[in-house]
Amino acid sequence: MAESLRVGVAGLGTVGASVVRVLSEKADAIAARAGRPVMVTAVSARDKGRDRGLKLDGVAWHMDPSQLARSNDVDLVVELIGGANGAARACVETAIERGRPVVTANKALLAKHGVAIAKAAEKAGVAVGFEAAVAGGVPVVKTLREALAGNDVSRVFGILNGTCNYILTRMERDRIGFAECLAEAQRLGYAEADPTFDVGGFDAAHKLALLTTLAFGVETDADGIYVEGITSITPFDLQMAEELGYRVKLLGVTTRGEGGIEQRVHPSMLPKDSAIARVDGVTNAVEIDGDVVGALVLAGPGAGGDATASAVIADIVDIARGVRRPVFGIPAEQLAAPKRAPMQTHQGGYYIRLSVIDRPGAAAAIATRMAEQSISLRSIVQRGREPDFDRPSSEPVAVVLITYATNEAALRRALDAIEADGHIDGAPQVIRIEKR
Amino acid sequence: MAESLRVGVAGLGTVGASVVRVLSEKADAIAARAGRPVMVTAVSARDKGRDRGLKLDGVAWHMDPSQLARSNDVDLVVELIGGANGAARACVETAIERGRPVVTANKALLAKHGVAIAKAAEKAGVAVGFEAAVAGGVPVVKTLREALAGNDVSRVFGILNGTCNYILTRMERDRIGFAECLAEAQRLGYAEADPTFDVGGFDAAHKLALLTTLAFGVETDADGIYVEGITSITPFDLQMAEELGYRVKLLGVTTRGEGGIEQRVHPSMLPKDSAIARVDGVTNAVEIDGDVVGALVLAGPGAGGDATASAVIADIVDIARGVRRPVFGIPAEQLAAPKRAPMQTHQGGYYIRLSVIDRPGAAAAIATRMAEQSISLRSIVQRGREPDFDRPSSEPVAVVLITYATNEAALRRALDAIEADGHIDGAPQVIRIEKR
Repeated sequence: MAESLRVGVAGLGTVGASVVRVLSEKADAIAARAGRPVMVTAVSARDKGRDRGLKLDGVAWHMDPSQLARSNDVDLVVELIGGANGAARACVETAIERGRPVVTANKALLAKHGVAIAKAAEKAGVAVGFEAAVAGGVPVVKTLREALAGNDVSRVFGILNGTCNYILTRMERDRIGFAECLAEAQRLGYAEADPTFDVGGFDAAHKLALLTTLAFGVETDADGIYVEGITSITPFDLQMAEELGYRVKLLGVTTRGEGGIEQRVHPSMLPKDSAIARVDGVTNAVEIDGDVVGALVLAGPGAGGDATASAVIADIVDIARGVRRPVFGIPAEQLAAPKRAPMQTHQGGYYIRLSVIDRPGAAAAIATRMAEQSISLRSIVQRGREPDFDRPSSEPVAVVLITYATNEAALRRALDAIEADGHIDGAPQVIRIEKR
Repeated sequence: MAESLRVGVAGLGTVGASVVRVLSEKADAIAARAGRPVMVTAVSARDKGRDRGLKLDGVAWHMDPSQLARSNDVDLVVELIGGANGAARACVETAIERGRPVVTANKALLAKHGVAIAKAAEKAGVAVGFEAAVAGGVPVVKTLREALAGNDVSRVFGILNGTCNYILTRMERDRIGFAECLAEAQRLGYAEADPTFDVGGFDAAHKLALLTTLAFGVETDADGIYVEGITSITPFDLQMAEELGYRVKLLGVTTRGEGGIEQRVHPSMLPKDSAIARVDGVTNAVEIDGDVVGALVLAGPGAGGDATASAVIADIVDIARGVRRPVFGIPAEQLAAPKRAPMQTHQGGYYIRLSVIDRPGAAAAIATRMAEQSISLRSIVQRGREPDFDRPSSEPVAVVLITYATNEAALRRALDAIEADGHIDGAPQVIRIEKR
């Protein structure tokens, strides 16, 4: 058997601890798959005293992750520090400079600096694995980069953030408001103390940026992603979706069309019998539409120490086997500049919830504004209030419209006109419908 | 860029024609992913005159696939002939003898001779790719062999035959009998003129044998698979399943437990809200339960020329990239002998439909026979016939029992005793319940 592969793990949070533990507990099975022993020879973390339940006898401890990357004790560096800059970036860049392959779960780093890192790695002839950076344990990176090599991909979309999917599932099932569900998710450890990164859609956007590069062979363009979070979704929206045949999910969607690449993260309505619509709780799920294979769906645990460690170890074993590929499947020098399709040109159906001031002519005025923009309505639902059944009231009523496919610019013009007419109270709620 | 990889395609049916077409149409994109041009330089098929819509100018034509495998025009051989022996086997063995890597979609060949082929290939230092042999375009081989390198897998199960799933979906949806659905599937091209291989479960069994080897690191043991087809399933069974919260699917299931490896292909009831239960039509879907990652689900087109070609091309590109792994993930010499867990020890719930002769004491006798074998019943459903509402009749009535988990041997003893008692007419229908 070949020489051992000596692994340095920078960052000993839940993922790092799981990687160290699994590599040790399953050393024999992993050696059989890797063709050589894989052993952790160095780690880096700030708090040396903390008990992580790991046996680290004989393992070198570095306070500075870049020092670990530089050390002659390691052949491969696993970066699990996180963050787009700072220690994580320095550690990865140092490893590559020293000619050492890198495995990372750091979506923020790669969404921002992935192309530069890939160029440096390819120049140095080292691999960079990042399966763990997208959808946790679900092998979507490997599938896009390798299994679909014969396909032109037209769309990748899915549930990329387990926290949001947990909250939406719970809101829908138990008709509880967003704030209460978020607090519960925080208690259960599914959401961070500062939840903005998750519920604002930013975590999903980082992952989507990487999927776009893998799917379409273009440079990563995280700044080109249209991002909306889930904070404005109400139990009423979820109930209406259900009645109209949809479910609401926070989706990341990337498509390539004639106008360019459209990347967006926002709450979406999906036909409720579609595969992605049915995914509940913290599970992640991704659909890939390829021209040769058709539609593939992958689903599984998108977060958590062990699921993420599973992806990290797969990358380590690939590298131990001597697999060398460009980081994003094609050489980074060949990645094209992405042409952004602006959100204004987005085509699709819409769910619109208006808080309408209940007086004669309001409905007609709204319908007229839609017609002026050539927007056809598939459904209109207005719920009469029981006590005021036979007369309008000064309280606004909820009116829900489902449009046929139109474009974002026309829809925004119609909504601006409706707002200007003074028939509605507050901003319209708009949820895009994702086609099957 | 490195030298071209010269590919010989043996077998020009729908899959072979699609491979040749896609490699030509997408030559540039595939070269970028493969790191070198990939070109078809030789083909083999019996009927040279047939118009397959392919440009084969300058491509060598071999009547004998082994001659193609032996020819100096090819660096890699794609075997799409089919069959466990004969021309396909000779072609693959010849290619390996000549030190040429092989990509094949041939599940019958590998289920029977896969271990010997893997040993020969590993001795010769050549790769054998077979993604296309299991679940068509769904990358389940790559996922088990590579993406789950850090996992001990406890179970792999799923829908491995699109023909059966199409028939069951249609029977359920439109309450049509098996024979009529089969005839329709044959008309639509979803089933062969001789459908036994599909509807008898044998095609799924070949695929399952390969999944077992990948998941558990044991030698392929197709003869150790318990196989039942779908021919005895009735619309009434599907309707009862629905009422009781299940759907019926032809599943391949392989599990590893203390008693050994249990491999089985048979109609199964799955909780209707589980991911695999929801998969309709010709789609394939596989769930893999790994100890580190949790449950992964992969779904997509399991058959058809293009979907299968997508998998073939992925294997070609891996080999073009220089990826070299043992065929089944670990060296074939290290594959253990599989210890078979006999079907008699199978543990699980059961759906049992009895045609009961409607006279006093019949129900009590049946319940007693179950109790004697310590089998607990979760549900009992007897449908009274409307016209005979208040008196027993000489016509048998359908009684459906759902058991809690028991074992196959106890269940078979109970059913034998019930048959011996003479209260039932005809053989019991037994459908195993697969747990979530």
